[in-house]
Amino acid sequence: MSRFFSDKYASLTPYTPGEQPKDMQYVKLNTNESPFPPSDKAIAYAARAAASLQLYSDPESRPLTEAVATLCGVSPREVLLTNGSDEILNFAFMAFCDEKHPAVFPDITYGFYKVFAEVNGIPYRTIPLRKDMTVDVDAYCETEETVFLANPNAPTGIALPVEAIERIVRSNPNRVVVIDEAYVDFGAESCLPLVKKYDNLLVTQTFSKSRSLAGGRLGFGVGCEALIRDLNTLKYSTNPYNVNRMTMAAGLGVLEDEAYTRQNCRTIEHNRAWLTAALEARGFTVIPSKANFILAAHPALDGGATYRRLKEMGILVRHFDTDRLSRYNRITVGSLTQLQALVAAIDTILEEAV
Amino acid sequence: MSRFFSDKYASLTPYTPGEQPKDMQYVKLNTNESPFPPSDKAIAYAARAAASLQLYSDPESRPLTEAVATLCGVSPREVLLTNGSDEILNFAFMAFCDEKHPAVFPDITYGFYKVFAEVNGIPYRTIPLRKDMTVDVDAYCETEETVFLANPNAPTGIALPVEAIERIVRSNPNRVVVIDEAYVDFGAESCLPLVKKYDNLLVTQTFSKSRSLAGGRLGFGVGCEALIRDLNTLKYSTNPYNVNRMTMAAGLGVLEDEAYTRQNCRTIEHNRAWLTAALEARGFTVIPSKANFILAAHPALDGGATYRRLKEMGILVRHFDTDRLSRYNRITVGSLTQLQALVAAIDTILEEAV
Repeated sequence: MSRFFSDKYASLTPYTPGEQPKDMQYVKLNTNESPFPPSDKAIAYAARAAASLQLYSDPESRPLTEAVATLCGVSPREVLLTNGSDEILNFAFMAFCDEKHPAVFPDITYGFYKVFAEVNGIPYRTIPLRKDMTVDVDAYCETEETVFLANPNAPTGIALPVEAIERIVRSNPNRVVVIDEAYVDFGAESCLPLVKKYDNLLVTQTFSKSRSLAGGRLGFGVGCEALIRDLNTLKYSTNPYNVNRMTMAAGLGVLEDEAYTRQNCRTIEHNRAWLTAALEARGFTVIPSKANFILAAHPALDGGATYRRLKEMGILVRHFDTDRLSRYNRITVGSLTQLQALVAAIDTILEEAV
Repeated sequence: MSRFFSDKYASLTPYTPGEQPKDMQYVKLNTNESPFPPSDKAIAYAARAAASLQLYSDPESRPLTEAVATLCGVSPREVLLTNGSDEILNFAFMAFCDEKHPAVFPDITYGFYKVFAEVNGIPYRTIPLRKDMTVDVDAYCETEETVFLANPNAPTGIALPVEAIERIVRSNPNRVVVIDEAYVDFGAESCLPLVKKYDNLLVTQTFSKSRSLAGGRLGFGVGCEALIRDLNTLKYSTNPYNVNRMTMAAGLGVLEDEAYTRQNCRTIEHNRAWLTAALEARGFTVIPSKANFILAAHPALDGGATYRRLKEMGILVRHFDTDRLSRYNRITVGSLTQLQALVAAIDTILEEAV
């Protein structure tokens, strides 16, 4: 910390992204990326857009905003595109929380929520997941705090049904409920249809997972016009040209090729079932996941040790060194080839553990 | 404003980007874009990167950070890349100002500074430019406020010599001085060499103007390691993957083709001299600019009316409707063909004004 850094941030601990070591080629199952390249149209449109980068991107992102609105069944005025969904989540913390309006989210969820709260000076409370790692829905009803829920949740992969989300939204008419659907496309139910019914619901999604655009940085929020207007005020007060021209073009290409996205999602669901069965057959407990990752633990293995041994063997998974998660590893559902390599490595680790 | 929007932003007026109307093809001289396409290498590298967008970008942006460090004659730990230079400027306001540490900048400068201050709840003071539109250097010495200066300044185009900047930096050892060099490559002097000498200097630059990458969103800050660490704390607390893979690749292509950038800058300087002479020959006052735009006024014309008439004729320039600027238009120095079209249109307007 320099002697000039504002006291506000003295105790701020930034988010730690999944590691991206450069020392060798790893089987990367640690950051929930898609194993599939972007659709051909996305690649072609982005490449074409590169030739006109001397011009600013359209701050209103009009054609892509319209395409996303169509996808979501809402009007373009109910959509805001951002530089990844992290940016819209940060805007939501800024817009709908402050010292008098704290945030609330699960103790085990996307690790960035507490960072967003802290960087914006927002008090927050966490509610423990239940013993089975599910979200305690009742605890979020009538809270008077701004609710942030990832659905499916991370890193558990457990999804809530839309009825449960609706109960939370309905019971908090005076606070915004933010549902982070980064992982919704792999078998969970989206609550986008509720946006038309409730003015206090903001749904965020991303092109990073199901749409193979993690490296393009494209996320979006969907909510009633007034909420989107607030979030736009923050966008135009921090970085109006937040989405670059190539990514806008790539996003349009992705949406013109929705069948490819759907097919990739079905493949991930299939691979998830394969991985779950393979691990369960080896004595692992696997939390039932609706996301493109699973959380798994083995009675004979320590999550930290497994992570380190897998890394030595050229496979990256994620380990969270906290009380309730330290036994587990979070494993991205990649291609079958990647998962077969993982399971073979785990067989070796299990033999070593005997 | 929704009923949920934090009171903090009740009086926030967002930045207004230059218009990008879609109703027809304009000669665009309103947002200081380059008239030249990005270098061939930038286009090719970006296009190649589009094929692997399923992977997150490297949050440390290592190869590009190293290349920018080499360009600037500093170490990679003294560089932070951002999503346009707006993002690093916002981070600088967040990091180095707060309620007890106000900001100070000229009354006439990049319009975003006051928005960055307001969105972050930072008190600020503006110091009027002198009558000749130059920055009053003495007024920034020993201020005890965090100083933000665009050099060359916008929308005047007037540049301060490095000695003047050094005097400000040296006289404010306990506050950070931020020098925004977005327009430095068109004939002004960069104060990058001062970074090694002063721990309270942050220099920001962009790939948007001289490097033809406005639509790619790439900016950067250069300062001592401790300042860059602070800014990184904010990056990792808001959007760790702020720069996308394609833009990183394009940036590397640009830097491998520095001769192209230099040549384009010399062409802009040449065109600026041509435009200045053409306007002065027609009775305009043109502020002596070191940027890729000029600020010009004619005794017989009103800036707002000229802007509107030019737009009808298919040419976009910028008009700022404030006391000291309302007589002027800010005109981007484009290609000679664009500038010839502009001057022909102005001849028509001058005839109409008789």
